[in-house]
Amino acid sequence: MPQALIFDVFGTVVDWRGSITREIRSLANNKGIHLNAGQFANDWRSGYQPAMNRVRQGDLPWLNIDGLHRIILDDLKKKYGLEHLSEAETDVLNRSWHRLKPWPDSVRGLRRLKKGYTISPLSNGNFSLLNNMAKNSGLPWDCIISAELFGHYKPDPETYLGAAKLLDLPPEEVMLCAAHKDDLLAAQACGLRTAFIKRPKEFPPSMNIDLSTDARFDLNAESIIDLANQLNV
Amino acid sequence: MPQALIFDVFGTVVDWRGSITREIRSLANNKGIHLNAGQFANDWRSGYQPAMNRVRQGDLPWLNIDGLHRIILDDLKKKYGLEHLSEAETDVLNRSWHRLKPWPDSVRGLRRLKKGYTISPLSNGNFSLLNNMAKNSGLPWDCIISAELFGHYKPDPETYLGAAKLLDLPPEEVMLCAAHKDDLLAAQACGLRTAFIKRPKEFPPSMNIDLSTDARFDLNAESIIDLANQLNV
Repeated sequence: MPQALIFDVFGTVVDWRGSITREIRSLANNKGIHLNAGQFANDWRSGYQPAMNRVRQGDLPWLNIDGLHRIILDDLKKKYGLEHLSEAETDVLNRSWHRLKPWPDSVRGLRRLKKGYTISPLSNGNFSLLNNMAKNSGLPWDCIISAELFGHYKPDPETYLGAAKLLDLPPEEVMLCAAHKDDLLAAQACGLRTAFIKRPKEFPPSMNIDLSTDARFDLNAESIIDLANQLNV
Repeated sequence: MPQALIFDVFGTVVDWRGSITREIRSLANNKGIHLNAGQFANDWRSGYQPAMNRVRQGDLPWLNIDGLHRIILDDLKKKYGLEHLSEAETDVLNRSWHRLKPWPDSVRGLRRLKKGYTISPLSNGNFSLLNNMAKNSGLPWDCIISAELFGHYKPDPETYLGAAKLLDLPPEEVMLCAAHKDDLLAAQACGLRTAFIKRPKEFPPSMNIDLSTDARFDLNAESIIDLANQLNV
């Protein structure tokens, strides 16, 4: 049995797409600008894998996610007619990722899991982002484990093994809980246990994300509350 | 005003001397061994600064506090007639530092402070030690910041500045809260704010520790609850 449950955050614990769409829409309304807020959110998120790859390949120095989000945002401002945002407004917008809202089951599910397990994020989000998000939304983490602590982004093995080492647990006593199969498979290759949390609303239906129950994982859950049920806490 | 309060732990938040004394006394009673448990606790703690210095000077490779405690304990076992403890018993004893009990005001004071501030340890204790201690005792940290994250022990500046950087705050928006003036002065030299928490029972009265109110610090408090009062939360 696992001693610690570590969670992917963007998409698994919080609804980045809905939260970012709402922030962009509100800003655009205040500025009297017409734009497709949902598309903006998708574009912002789509820029994130290529930006992490530029860090991974040494094309960019280590930058945390606030830094990567800002690089992508500076491009999107031009594309969406937001060039005239001030530096302060741009910074506030960039930190909308610190204010992502949890899925409806997340806080209640995590509170239950915390009674039986150490619960922590294992996210590419930077430490302060994860801390601010938890303060804003009441995510009851025991501790914050960010890719920033290792200077490596998931799915690099340094992140999964680094989390287990910080917790002083063998990998098989740590379970990654995530909505993304590639993340889970990378953790599994490092010897961690895995729980797939289905999040059908993370991406638009048109993207045909694979949400099927998958026997490769130790657990498959419909929500974090369902995970707590399956783990008997 | 500070945005984050970071706490020294051993002595400031938890009573290491009372907790270790009780663990040693209980073990000795179970084994039918006569020893001075309070002296054992003091000896164990006294070995810790020299051991950290050996790491700092490169005489030992980086070892976390569990590792340093174990080196000291292996010597003390001989001195106190505990050579016959098994490896498993020795490991359980070494982890008594994961089970240190909070001072009576700590949990209540931290719960109040958490409403207005990010609260975190900044301790030389390793990450898993601090996490286990919080789980055992209900210390309501927002996150865990350990010297282990920086590969440096307090009072090295990398620890204070590293904590501020992880929290994405300028040093002057971070306040170190500690019962030890040398720790506070080192943080102050890095630009952090400081709160002195008086802990007259940490050391035996015979040691004549300087517990005087000190105008060099931003705040002087009689307890963590008093700190919450002074910070109006």
